[in-house]
Amino acid sequence: MEPVPAAEIFFRVEALQKALAAAGIGLALIRQPADLFYYAGTLVDGFLAVTPGGQPSLLVRRPRHRGHLTPGPWPRVLYRDLKELPQTLGQAGLDPRGAVALELDVIPAALFRRIQEQIFPGHPIVDLSSFIRIQRMVKSAYELTQLDRAAAILDQVHEQAPALLKPGISELEVSAALEYRLRLLGHQGLVRVRNWDLEVFYGHVLSGVSGLLAAYTDTPSGGAGFSAAFPQGASLKKLAPNEPISIDLAACVNGYAVDMTRMYALGSLPSRAWEAWDAVEELYRLFTSAAKPGTSPGEIFHLLWDAVRPRGLADFFMGLGTDRVSFLAHGVGLELDEYPLITARFPFPLETGMVLAFEPKFFLPEIGMIGQEDTGRITPAGVEWLTRSPRGITIV
Amino acid sequence: MEPVPAAEIFFRVEALQKALAAAGIGLALIRQPADLFYYAGTLVDGFLAVTPGGQPSLLVRRPRHRGHLTPGPWPRVLYRDLKELPQTLGQAGLDPRGAVALELDVIPAALFRRIQEQIFPGHPIVDLSSFIRIQRMVKSAYELTQLDRAAAILDQVHEQAPALLKPGISELEVSAALEYRLRLLGHQGLVRVRNWDLEVFYGHVLSGVSGLLAAYTDTPSGGAGFSAAFPQGASLKKLAPNEPISIDLAACVNGYAVDMTRMYALGSLPSRAWEAWDAVEELYRLFTSAAKPGTSPGEIFHLLWDAVRPRGLADFFMGLGTDRVSFLAHGVGLELDEYPLITARFPFPLETGMVLAFEPKFFLPEIGMIGQEDTGRITPAGVEWLTRSPRGITIV
Repeated sequence: MEPVPAAEIFFRVEALQKALAAAGIGLALIRQPADLFYYAGTLVDGFLAVTPGGQPSLLVRRPRHRGHLTPGPWPRVLYRDLKELPQTLGQAGLDPRGAVALELDVIPAALFRRIQEQIFPGHPIVDLSSFIRIQRMVKSAYELTQLDRAAAILDQVHEQAPALLKPGISELEVSAALEYRLRLLGHQGLVRVRNWDLEVFYGHVLSGVSGLLAAYTDTPSGGAGFSAAFPQGASLKKLAPNEPISIDLAACVNGYAVDMTRMYALGSLPSRAWEAWDAVEELYRLFTSAAKPGTSPGEIFHLLWDAVRPRGLADFFMGLGTDRVSFLAHGVGLELDEYPLITARFPFPLETGMVLAFEPKFFLPEIGMIGQEDTGRITPAGVEWLTRSPRGITIV
Repeated sequence: MEPVPAAEIFFRVEALQKALAAAGIGLALIRQPADLFYYAGTLVDGFLAVTPGGQPSLLVRRPRHRGHLTPGPWPRVLYRDLKELPQTLGQAGLDPRGAVALELDVIPAALFRRIQEQIFPGHPIVDLSSFIRIQRMVKSAYELTQLDRAAAILDQVHEQAPALLKPGISELEVSAALEYRLRLLGHQGLVRVRNWDLEVFYGHVLSGVSGLLAAYTDTPSGGAGFSAAFPQGASLKKLAPNEPISIDLAACVNGYAVDMTRMYALGSLPSRAWEAWDAVEELYRLFTSAAKPGTSPGEIFHLLWDAVRPRGLADFFMGLGTDRVSFLAHGVGLELDEYPLITARFPFPLETGMVLAFEPKFFLPEIGMIGQEDTGRITPAGVEWLTRSPRGITIV
């Protein structure tokens, strides 16, 4: 078990403390698993309490006696019930003055109401989530190493994919075999997302018209799945010759998720598919050089869309008709739906060390989805890709 | 793809409408995926709007044009942004009068605030979640059939487990192989939980002292995992002779999850393990006959604890020392953490058709976890088990 380096955690908390001081916030209580892991290097049922100055405390409900292999650097204070929090904070010398900050984008309303009315009456409650999401956009060298490792196991799995693909095997059989390989290569299994009602499993293995089914979540491709209760991802449809096959999977190492899509086909593909593929290649060239520190996501968004329109492919880009997603790339890290986003209006310019999954995808009626996805980091020279499998449609 | 029968959905919504009328609630907006699937038979990015009388409407942001295989019975109204909701509801003839009910145990605070302040100012916002959780406790014949199917694939996987177990294979390798088999047998992959910060993947394959690590979530056994970011479940520890091996996995068919644990050992186990096993068997006998309609969970809880204490095993039951969980059984269904709970204070008596995962587990220092888990339904004659693999510790 590899702990997060303590210096990494100190650095993160220091930035948070400066932001709290600047905003006049007396106390931040961090609870959501990805955020807690980021600032504490460990996971508990409890809160990390951070004030603008001094040392944070980990308020722990359970486990009380875990022989922790990765306890993180912060001292622990035990409590049993939420109502003890003010007293527990007092013991730790962390009595809040003024506003209390919580992750309001994920904390449920009932818990929020209880904290507001019963735990900290009289304190303004403010939202901490924007600050956290913005801080987490830019990855450290340590974080980039973890992302590289996640990318490497995706590359390894895609090397093994062609041998699996044959007419008559189902999307599910292919997906299950790749999921199994990912696990053996060290994928931790759980991939976290921030949005409370976004549901992901490993990803989507789709073939032919399966690729055209719009998602009920905010992803470009959805797939049918095989359960009415979870209608996304691989279905029981069998692979057939001459249709696009897309393998879109995430892998997660030490908490850090990378996202990647590769295309395959058994036999050949119709000319319209190759025309769309030409567009994918052009979009990769444009994005790789345009996505540099200082560039605004809106500028890149329009550059890419302006390349799609003259090809007559606008109705098929990033979704069919009105079912398109608003982003061309999304941040990845401890969550699969991080900042930054490449959208028309995402407000923060790109910075060195941001990591994005770029996924230009076309949805061709009666044919299927044609696209590709790689995760890369922003450098002064443009995008440096973490996922490195050969680009292109692999004909099996 | 098997749709939920329309009659099933009508029946569920009718019960909800009666409850809304009785409570004087003008409108319920249902959004969380498990709840939406329960009352609408489909999943969308949107809300199911239910008033005390008349027909519900599905308010859909996306997908707008999915060729839905399982669209569910309710008419759809499209919208683009939350701020259009009052107008969209008006078009559907569903203008709210009086209180608006939301799932406040899962809706994030920021979304709740926006709905309260900007969408329905002047309307009291009340919590719908208790009603939903209570309604969903009792399963219909249709639901029991789905749960039976999930139980059957767990039984099949446990038949295959002994062949995998050998000294030197890691917990992760065993877990990954069983996960792969579950997928091929029709496990939908995603297992939903209600608690916003409860994290599950497939379950826990643990051996020897791995079984003693308390969980950071509300489960009796935790395991180490192999990632500091997800410290639960299978680790890289290799199986060794003469230690308990527990395989605790969930499977999910058409949305319905079943939970099950079986014990294995390579070679033999120390006598203290067998003494704990005797207690497990006694607890199964007691629970099977005591868990009948009309019995209070507290009564069963005390009956079982009273059987544990004279055996000198109280310090090791349901967790080590103070790290024990408060429940001996938990409801399962569309979520893995449903009602009812067998705890000291769970307030509702058992009813025919409730479904519980019963998991008496002992945590023996230096040895590991000894326990078992089966999912069963309450009948007038006691518990009828859905998971049917042979009971006992399988010596390989």
